Amino acid sequence: MKIAIMGFGVVGSGVGEVVTKNQDILVKKCGEPIEIAHILDLRDFPDSEFRCFTKDFNDILNDPEVGIVVETMGGVNPAYEFSKKLLLAGKSVITSNKELVAAHGTELLQIARERNLNYLFEASVGGGIPIIRPMFSCLTAGEATDVFGILNGTTNYILTQMFQKGETFDNALRAAQKKGYAEADPTADVEGHDTCRKIAILSALAFGDSVLTERIPTEGITKITAEDVAYAEKLGYSIKLIGHATKAEDGGVFAAVFPAFVPKSNPLAGINDVFNGIIVKGEDLGDVMFYGRGAGKLPTANAVVADVVDAIKHKGVNIIIKWNEYKPENQSEGKLQKYPYYVRFSGKAVSGLEGCQIVTFDEEEYKNEFAVITKPMTETALGEFVAGVEGMGGKALGKLRLIGE
Amino acid sequence: MKIAIMGFGVVGSGVGEVVTKNQDILVKKCGEPIEIAHILDLRDFPDSEFRCFTKDFNDILNDPEVGIVVETMGGVNPAYEFSKKLLLAGKSVITSNKELVAAHGTELLQIARERNLNYLFEASVGGGIPIIRPMFSCLTAGEATDVFGILNGTTNYILTQMFQKGETFDNALRAAQKKGYAEADPTADVEGHDTCRKIAILSALAFGDSVLTERIPTEGITKITAEDVAYAEKLGYSIKLIGHATKAEDGGVFAAVFPAFVPKSNPLAGINDVFNGIIVKGEDLGDVMFYGRGAGKLPTANAVVADVVDAIKHKGVNIIIKWNEYKPENQSEGKLQKYPYYVRFSGKAVSGLEGCQIVTFDEEEYKNEFAVITKPMTETALGEFVAGVEGMGGKALGKLRLIGE
Repeated sequence: MKIAIMGFGVVGSGVGEVVTKNQDILVKKCGEPIEIAHILDLRDFPDSEFRCFTKDFNDILNDPEVGIVVETMGGVNPAYEFSKKLLLAGKSVITSNKELVAAHGTELLQIARERNLNYLFEASVGGGIPIIRPMFSCLTAGEATDVFGILNGTTNYILTQMFQKGETFDNALRAAQKKGYAEADPTADVEGHDTCRKIAILSALAFGDSVLTERIPTEGITKITAEDVAYAEKLGYSIKLIGHATKAEDGGVFAAVFPAFVPKSNPLAGINDVFNGIIVKGEDLGDVMFYGRGAGKLPTANAVVADVVDAIKHKGVNIIIKWNEYKPENQSEGKLQKYPYYVRFSGKAVSGLEGCQIVTFDEEEYKNEFAVITKPMTETALGEFVAGVEGMGGKALGKLRLIGE
Repeated sequence: MKIAIMGFGVVGSGVGEVVTKNQDILVKKCGEPIEIAHILDLRDFPDSEFRCFTKDFNDILNDPEVGIVVETMGGVNPAYEFSKKLLLAGKSVITSNKELVAAHGTELLQIARERNLNYLFEASVGGGIPIIRPMFSCLTAGEATDVFGILNGTTNYILTQMFQKGETFDNALRAAQKKGYAEADPTADVEGHDTCRKIAILSALAFGDSVLTERIPTEGITKITAEDVAYAEKLGYSIKLIGHATKAEDGGVFAAVFPAFVPKSNPLAGINDVFNGIIVKGEDLGDVMFYGRGAGKLPTANAVVADVVDAIKHKGVNIIIKWNEYKPENQSEGKLQKYPYYVRFSGKAVSGLEGCQIVTFDEEEYKNEFAVITKPMTETALGEFVAGVEGMGGKALGKLRLIGE
């Protein structure tokens, strides 16, 4: 089987490495050798062992012997246009591109389905952790009720540093950048955009309806303070950036990204550093968790190559992955969605807040503040609650949801 | 699609329940309704909602409309004979029967493959945790180096009680029996036989060669004492019953079942109560862990039904799961396999044991004993080591391997 790679960055070059190194194993698993016929990249790689570089997409599109193309370019354009042309030309496409899958997965999956091809994207979420395939093929029967994921290694590393070393957000971010875990412009990670794309994909797989990333309320971790960490520790919680997708009470699917208090008894709380973890909850499923290194050149490349193997095994047969086209009414605004909240206030602790837990510290620097853990309530109700407490003299300094009790 | 169920016990009746309750979801996922046409069981179920019971296997074998049969009978006979006849008659078979898969999986998979049918067994390991399918379809590319699993909920519950409540093995076993987690005759669980069958299946999937359960060294948890627990706690370890499969240094695959010290930093150490967890390690994979409730009627039934759905989606197409027939030389005796060991000795702590850590307690009742954590060594070397220490006056009271550092 001849394949092509589009985009020879970290993951793309990893795919080259894995395919070359594991030829013997791959022949055993596929029944035929895998040959890399073209590598598309605008850059030059004079020192590469590969000799099949091209800067012209048509070299791949027009090569009738290429049956499978690996897209590790990232970004929506031109990856979308290329992927669509390749599928229309009868080639299966394997991708690690979460942005593209979140934006155009519905359409690309449909084209693949109509032509008995495959569009596979195991590497788009959770790096080397098998999560996409279990979601569509193992957790079929009882419908899931919730997906909770720690889906971004960079932010999880930063939060772990804040908890374990008492670092501020800024210092922890710098440490992550030094280690190569965070980019010079860390916006996509720390503002939650990366997690947003991934929870959009998991939501579509779990509930069968496409959601728009633009409509997913997305909050990052930049506002988490040392005080929030102290309250979490005191109460037996960790703080994690969570992608959450759930069947909302209004009948639609609600997906959101937010930092949350997670009780230490929940296995997500123990996922530290750059690791990722995804819990799928369902009435009849019990909770199932998937855990592993959520990024990294070779684990991610391995996930891509596993998809290539699956596409070879399924030549001429579509592996049915299907979710419905986006319809506005199927994506909930979450107005009825209830979470317990942690709210930190300045001032003296107030009393008489029904169903709430009040938390204070004895230390001098915490003398003029307190925190409240509320019962589960909607965001609107929380607004009223906060206004009420502020009316008694305090001022809200920060708030976070609680999940996974 | 008409299906049949053989064996209407906990899992089989759960399959009936899941199929009935989720008809709408299943139609959406399969494209056609699933109808239960026959249920084979020697018992009578006068109060069941189902009206299609039979005591005659031929009613299923000879019904040309039945394309998929669920085997939830357990045991090797007559499940083996029935499954083989069904596959030879052109019907796909879905099973939760770990004993049968471990004993005859190679042959049944081959029959299915030759006839473009499917023999699927997701529910045979880990209950509702998706592990079989990720093993054969996601972790394809870089070959795994190790599989470590907590595969038996009963023993994990007992060990958790011993750690968290300070119970003796006998009391913890009785508690497990009271809760319905352990059977009246708990041998298959506490002696490790159940774990042995499951690690045999995972080993075949991970390394591609069938292994004989009779040749898997299998040690249960009946000899674990309160003192072992105390030493583990002091050193920051948990004790878990582990199924381990690995590429051995002699070129074969070594599979074994044994209770082991697991450091608290390893995610397996945090898996408590009846939960199961499986770590797959590979050079290029990073560690991947699967976690969830390893048993339970509905989670296990859901795994069976997910396989039924997959078989419907793959009508006429074999989902390639392949491992080689058993060859004696491919299963290692593990003679070169090295583990660090914990060994508890009576007597006064000896000194001068190179590369070893000596552990003692100040408490009165531990005055006349000590423990040693050795460097990694073969079982033969350990025998010599123990003999050496005993020559200095101590006597070995117990020993356990260490894994997952």
